[in-house]
Amino acid sequence: MERIALVGAGLIGQAWAIVFGRAGHEVMLYDAEPGALKRAREAIAARLADLAAFGLVEGPQAVLGRIGYATGLAEALDGAGYVQESAPESVEVKRELYGELDRVAAPDAILASSTSGIPASSFTEHIAGRQRCLVAHPINPPFVTPLVELCPAPWTDPAVVDRAHALMTRAGQAPIRLNKEVQGFVANRMQAALIGAALRMVEDGVASAADVDVAIKAGIGLRWSFMGPLETIDLNAPGGIADYLRRYGPLYQAIEREQGPLGWTADALLRKLDEARRAVLPSGELPGRSAWRDRRLMALAAQKRQAAETIGE
Amino acid sequence: MERIALVGAGLIGQAWAIVFGRAGHEVMLYDAEPGALKRAREAIAARLADLAAFGLVEGPQAVLGRIGYATGLAEALDGAGYVQESAPESVEVKRELYGELDRVAAPDAILASSTSGIPASSFTEHIAGRQRCLVAHPINPPFVTPLVELCPAPWTDPAVVDRAHALMTRAGQAPIRLNKEVQGFVANRMQAALIGAALRMVEDGVASAADVDVAIKAGIGLRWSFMGPLETIDLNAPGGIADYLRRYGPLYQAIEREQGPLGWTADALLRKLDEARRAVLPSGELPGRSAWRDRRLMALAAQKRQAAETIGE
Repeated sequence: MERIALVGAGLIGQAWAIVFGRAGHEVMLYDAEPGALKRAREAIAARLADLAAFGLVEGPQAVLGRIGYATGLAEALDGAGYVQESAPESVEVKRELYGELDRVAAPDAILASSTSGIPASSFTEHIAGRQRCLVAHPINPPFVTPLVELCPAPWTDPAVVDRAHALMTRAGQAPIRLNKEVQGFVANRMQAALIGAALRMVEDGVASAADVDVAIKAGIGLRWSFMGPLETIDLNAPGGIADYLRRYGPLYQAIEREQGPLGWTADALLRKLDEARRAVLPSGELPGRSAWRDRRLMALAAQKRQAAETIGE
Repeated sequence: MERIALVGAGLIGQAWAIVFGRAGHEVMLYDAEPGALKRAREAIAARLADLAAFGLVEGPQAVLGRIGYATGLAEALDGAGYVQESAPESVEVKRELYGELDRVAAPDAILASSTSGIPASSFTEHIAGRQRCLVAHPINPPFVTPLVELCPAPWTDPAVVDRAHALMTRAGQAPIRLNKEVQGFVANRMQAALIGAALRMVEDGVASAADVDVAIKAGIGLRWSFMGPLETIDLNAPGGIADYLRRYGPLYQAIEREQGPLGWTADALLRKLDEARRAVLPSGELPGRSAWRDRRLMALAAQKRQAAETIGE
């Protein structure tokens, strides 16, 4: 089993340590910032205890035992077959870091970035081993949200994508493969479209922000937690997806035409949304509510696993 | 407790009988088509048995006992305070039917339509009691997908919307309120936007249809099953929703600009999607897979209720 090096020990690096440690890998975590590793060690232990309570990790102590903390980059990368970088979201930081990773890592190690928005081509073009670099973008937190978006640069070796895909699958994640670099990768492109439609309705006074949320969480969002949007419409017409689009495509097209341009960051819209949300959740309660969300995600992950076993996937 | 009349005993009418019967209402089901009621009675009994197995209904026999079958419209409407119409999706059919419902129903009974796409204004303008008419659009199947979209016509009495909202809430549904008539109401406008983004990616070869589905069901779709899209982004930046949009609005805007026009019903697209889906699920297995979906929705509804109790809502 590959040894895993994790570069960057913030929230995402910590979560990767849990993912790979839980899957049985030896993991070395490194962060250039002094103090980050100590905080990471405590946060990881607390998270593993939560996961154990939901039956989502067996033997949290053994997992902790597989996670090491390196005082230097060379120590972290020593013997690692896969490197997951979760450094700050800056092209400059990543350009410099990938030069260093390429010099220090074993020649056949994969170098993968957790970036949610920067294409690998923009920070790996200049390095000798650019064919072993790609994006492996997780959805936070990856130990309960298994999607990993694998997005190669134009020069990434397809065998490297295959290896990353196999590694993620073995670790219990759900990797998908992009064939070209696009803004936002796959999941956020769909989220962006849905959020845009939601914001337009709030702005136009069609429904309140709270009711827009209910429409998803008490409606169509329920099935999206265990089947995708294309499988969903495939089951919503007697003849499947093509039959569905022949019936409802014109309606969807009409909706698309009806939607005016959206001022995504317009002051009036932001104020309206902020007022609506702060009325339900004061600013000071955002961290507590995020912790609630993660516990609900854990409960859902446990249920989804059980339903897959008893009802089928 | 209001007596409920259900006009139309197809899949949606049957599901409403379960929703209202489970909530303790006396229900009368009617269908103009001979034979529909016999099929409905059998389907309702089978569905109640499924729901009981998931702990989603107590005393299915008592529920069955509250559901009556009327041989004529006058019998169905006799004493009903709320009428839910689930007739075929045709403006002409509904125009004629609402004239009749308005003549036969008790003067203060609410007349609500299950239509998923026809605004109430287009089939109630001509009738004397048009102020008591509105759309109450369910998501199939409503006994496990609680969203109900209440969409008034311009002449609907706001007190009628309030009464329908209260009735649905007491019945365990999750009603939302539209302030104006728009195509697709609220949920399908968001679904349309997301599906559009998904189809564009398949068409452009960014990712396979299967991987697009994974991006939702193993990613962002998990949290949308218990929190809405606006609450989701409110928790994804330290300062809440306005902070989030200031950070990511420009990316979302760029994605929107990058997306070309979509040929929603173009032959080549439909063929590609059909091939992708039929490779995973042959046409003959569509009904079986839909039954699987409904069992998974039942398991999810049971889990969601439990998680709301133990972790909070």
